[in-house]
Amino acid sequence: MQHLKRLTFGAMLSIFSVQLLAAQSPITDDQKHTATQLMQTAIKSDLGMEIVTSLTTEIGPRLGGSEAEKRARDWGLKLGQDLGFDKAWIEEFTMPFWDRGHLHISLTSPYQQDLYGTALGGAAPTKESINADVVYFRDIHALKAVKDNSLNGKIAFVDGDMMVKSQTGAGYGQANQRRRIGWQHAERGGASALVVRSVGSDSHRFPHSGMMSSEGDKWANIPVIAISNPDADHLRRLHNLDKPLTISLHSESKWKGDVSSGNVILDLVGSEKPEEIVLIGGHLDSWDLGTGAVDDGAGIAITTAAAALIAKLPKRPKRTIRVVMFGAEEVGLLGAFAYAKQHEANLKNHVVATESDFGAQTIWQLVSNVNPKATVLMDDIAKILSPLGIIRGGSDVPGGGPDIIPLAAKGVPTIRLSQNGRDYFDLHHTPDDTLDKINPDELAQNIAAYAASIYLIADSDVELKP
Amino acid sequence: MQHLKRLTFGAMLSIFSVQLLAAQSPITDDQKHTATQLMQTAIKSDLGMEIVTSLTTEIGPRLGGSEAEKRARDWGLKLGQDLGFDKAWIEEFTMPFWDRGHLHISLTSPYQQDLYGTALGGAAPTKESINADVVYFRDIHALKAVKDNSLNGKIAFVDGDMMVKSQTGAGYGQANQRRRIGWQHAERGGASALVVRSVGSDSHRFPHSGMMSSEGDKWANIPVIAISNPDADHLRRLHNLDKPLTISLHSESKWKGDVSSGNVILDLVGSEKPEEIVLIGGHLDSWDLGTGAVDDGAGIAITTAAAALIAKLPKRPKRTIRVVMFGAEEVGLLGAFAYAKQHEANLKNHVVATESDFGAQTIWQLVSNVNPKATVLMDDIAKILSPLGIIRGGSDVPGGGPDIIPLAAKGVPTIRLSQNGRDYFDLHHTPDDTLDKINPDELAQNIAAYAASIYLIADSDVELKP
Repeated sequence: MQHLKRLTFGAMLSIFSVQLLAAQSPITDDQKHTATQLMQTAIKSDLGMEIVTSLTTEIGPRLGGSEAEKRARDWGLKLGQDLGFDKAWIEEFTMPFWDRGHLHISLTSPYQQDLYGTALGGAAPTKESINADVVYFRDIHALKAVKDNSLNGKIAFVDGDMMVKSQTGAGYGQANQRRRIGWQHAERGGASALVVRSVGSDSHRFPHSGMMSSEGDKWANIPVIAISNPDADHLRRLHNLDKPLTISLHSESKWKGDVSSGNVILDLVGSEKPEEIVLIGGHLDSWDLGTGAVDDGAGIAITTAAAALIAKLPKRPKRTIRVVMFGAEEVGLLGAFAYAKQHEANLKNHVVATESDFGAQTIWQLVSNVNPKATVLMDDIAKILSPLGIIRGGSDVPGGGPDIIPLAAKGVPTIRLSQNGRDYFDLHHTPDDTLDKINPDELAQNIAAYAASIYLIADSDVELKP
Repeated sequence: MQHLKRLTFGAMLSIFSVQLLAAQSPITDDQKHTATQLMQTAIKSDLGMEIVTSLTTEIGPRLGGSEAEKRARDWGLKLGQDLGFDKAWIEEFTMPFWDRGHLHISLTSPYQQDLYGTALGGAAPTKESINADVVYFRDIHALKAVKDNSLNGKIAFVDGDMMVKSQTGAGYGQANQRRRIGWQHAERGGASALVVRSVGSDSHRFPHSGMMSSEGDKWANIPVIAISNPDADHLRRLHNLDKPLTISLHSESKWKGDVSSGNVILDLVGSEKPEEIVLIGGHLDSWDLGTGAVDDGAGIAITTAAAALIAKLPKRPKRTIRVVMFGAEEVGLLGAFAYAKQHEANLKNHVVATESDFGAQTIWQLVSNVNPKATVLMDDIAKILSPLGIIRGGSDVPGGGPDIIPLAAKGVPTIRLSQNGRDYFDLHHTPDDTLDKINPDELAQNIAAYAASIYLIADSDVELKP
C-alpha cells in the first residue's frame, strides 16, 4: 500500500507535466527542473521517517524546559551536523518550568469510577485531596455567567460539544476557550477546582492536555483538569439523570522555577545572498503524555529533511535556508519569542518564514502573505507543486504557524503549506500521539512540497517583503 | 445515517420476501409471520440502546465480585421486572476476589517515560517497588525456551506481533498465550516481574487487561503487566537499537479473599412446555478499566431486549425463554460454572443455549450444534433472518459463547449468532470500552436476529437434543 502510493506520487510527477508557468515567470527552466527533481527524490526518500523515528524513540516525550528537551537539542544539533548543514548551533533562553506531576481523579458519587484526566498547563496543585460536589455547566458561556463566589467549595465541570473534524481544524479556537480561560471564571466563582471536557475530535479515553492562558501575569490558583470525551459524555449523562455528582481529585502539577530551554538553528548558507534568510522549522518540545510524533516530531522531520535534500544539490541556493527547531512552543511559544528577540536587529533580512506544526497528513494548499509583487512567484510555485495534489490558496492569508507569530508581528512575510488536519485533533496533546500514527507516504509528500517550494524561494531574486 | 440505515433494514424486511422455506418446514406460516414482525419491531426499537446506556451509565465498571457488580445484579433484577418477565431472581455464589489496585510503570533507562500498562488478572503485587533490567523476548516461544533461574533479578518483557483484525477474531487464542501462561515461564526463569505486549488489534495507547490462567490451583507470585501496543513498539525499537532497558514498577494488585457474586435469571414461562428452557444471555460483569459497553453490556442489552420484545406478543411461546445475566465471567466463567452446578439436575430440560459476548457489530451467520434432525429448523430460521444480512453457517459448530461452555460440556445443544468481531479486539478489556463505541443500528440488527430465532425455537416442537 505504502509502496504503491509512493509509486503513484512518482508517476504523477513523471507523467503529468506541471501546469504552464506564467509567460514572464520568475522561475527559470533550470530551477523548475531542480524543484521537480527534489520532489521526486523526496517521495522516494525515507529520511523524514528516520528523523521522526529517531526523535520519538531515542528522546521520547520532551516537555519544554525538561531534561528530555535538553537531550532533544543535543540530538538536533548532531542531526544538523550529520546531514551536512553549514552551521548548527543552539541559542539558549530561560523559562519558568511547569511540571505535571501525579494526578488522580475519580467520580465518587453516584459511585466510584476512575476518570481519565490530565492537568492543564499552568494549573495549581491540590493543597490536599479534594472531594467535592460538582456544578455542571453546559459550556463556557454558562460558566462565564457564573456569579462571584457562587461555587465556594464546589468543583465546576464545563462541558461543551465535541469538536467536529475538519481539514482546517476550524472549531479548535472556539472550543479551546474552556481550556484557555475557564479557570478565570471558576476562580471568580470560588470553585475549588475546574474540570473541563478536553478539546479533541476523538472518542477515545485520552485526555487532551494544553496550556491555559494567563490573566496578565497571573496563573490559575486552582487545579484545572481536562477529562476525555467519553468521560465527559458519562458525566453529562449522569447529570441529565439528575444524579448528584461528586469528584475526588489529587494533583501535584505546579510551577517549579526557572530552567533553561533553547532553539536549535541549522543553516544552509546562501551562495549569493547569504545574509537573506528563508526560515522554516517546527518545534522540538512536545507535551509529555505522548512522544510528540505528530506534534511536532513530524514538523521537525519535514523541514529538516527538506533542507537536507536541498543540501545535497551541487550548489547552495542563493539565499540562506535556516531550519529552526523551536524550544518550548507548547508552553507559550517561548522559543519563538526568544528567537524574535535575539534576532530582532536582523529580522529585516528574513525573507519569509513558515513552520510545519499541524501533524503529518498531506499538504493540500499553498497560501502566502507576501509583497503583492511576489504573488506571481507563489502562483508559479503552486503550479510546480500541483502533481502532489496541492492547489494555490489565498495570497493574503496571514500566519505561517504558531512559532512564526512573533516574526510576522514584526513584518516578516509568511507562507503556509496547509496540511490536512482532519485527524490532528484526535491525537494532539494526548498520550496517543505516537510514531505509529504517521503515514510514511503522507510525510514524504510534505517533504517534497517543502523541498521544492523552499528551494525556489531561496534561489529566487524576487523580493518578498512589502 | 442511523435513521437511513434503519430504513434500509426495514425496507429489506418489507420488500424482499424471505427465502422459501423447506417444503416440509417445521415453521408454520403464522410463526414465520410473527418472527418477521418481531424483526421489524426490533429494528425500529431503541430498547437495546436504552438498556446498555442505563447499565454503563448508572452502574459503570463492574468487576466480578465487586460492590458495583452487586449493584448491577439489583439493576438487572429490576429491569426484568419492569420489562414484564414472568419470573426474575438472583442466584448467588461465592468467589475469590482479585483487585487491581494502583499501578505505576515507567521506563527508567535509557530515559524516564511513563508506560501505559495494567495488571493482568490474578497477578501478585510488587512487594516493594522494582527497578530492574529488562530481558527482551521476541514472543512467547522465546520465553518458553528460557532456562531456569536465568532471569533472576530481571524483568522479562514478552513482545509479539500485533493481532490482525478479522471478522471471527481468529488469532486471539494464539496471541493470548503470552497473557495466559507467560507468567509460568517468567517465574521458572526467576524473573521479578513479567511485562507483556497486550493482546489487541488497536494502535492506541490503551493496555488490554484480561485474566491469566492458573497452573492447577497456583496463581502467579510475580506482578504481570500488559502494556499498550504503541508502548510495546517503543520498547521493541529501543531494544533493536541495543539500548539497555530498565523498567520501574509498583503494583498493588492482589487476591483479597472470598466475596459474593451472582447470576440474574429472567424467565418468560412457556405456554405449553414451561419445563423446557431456551437459554440466552450475556455477562453482567465487566473489566474495571472501561464501562463494559461492548464487553458485555451489549450482550445483556441484545438478549434482554430480544426476550422483552417476545414478551409483548399476545401469547407466550410454547417453551420457556430464560435470559441469564452471568456474573464474574471475565475472572474465570465463575457464574457459568455456578449456574451449571446449581441447575445440574435440570440441564436435560435445557433445549438449547447461546450467549451474546462478542461486541455489538452486526450478526453475519447462524451456526448450530444440535440434533441433526433439527438442522432443517435451523436452516429455515436462517432463511427468515436472511433480510438482516445473515447467512447459514455450519450445523456442527460447537460453542455458544464463553458462559455456555459448562452447559455444552454437559450436553446442552448450542447455537451461535456470529457477530462481526472486526473491531472487538480494539476495545476489549481496555479503558476505551465505553458506550460511544456502540452503533445503535448494529445493536438493533442483533436484537432482531435474536428475537426472531429465539421465538422460533421456543415456539417449536422440534427436539434439539441429540
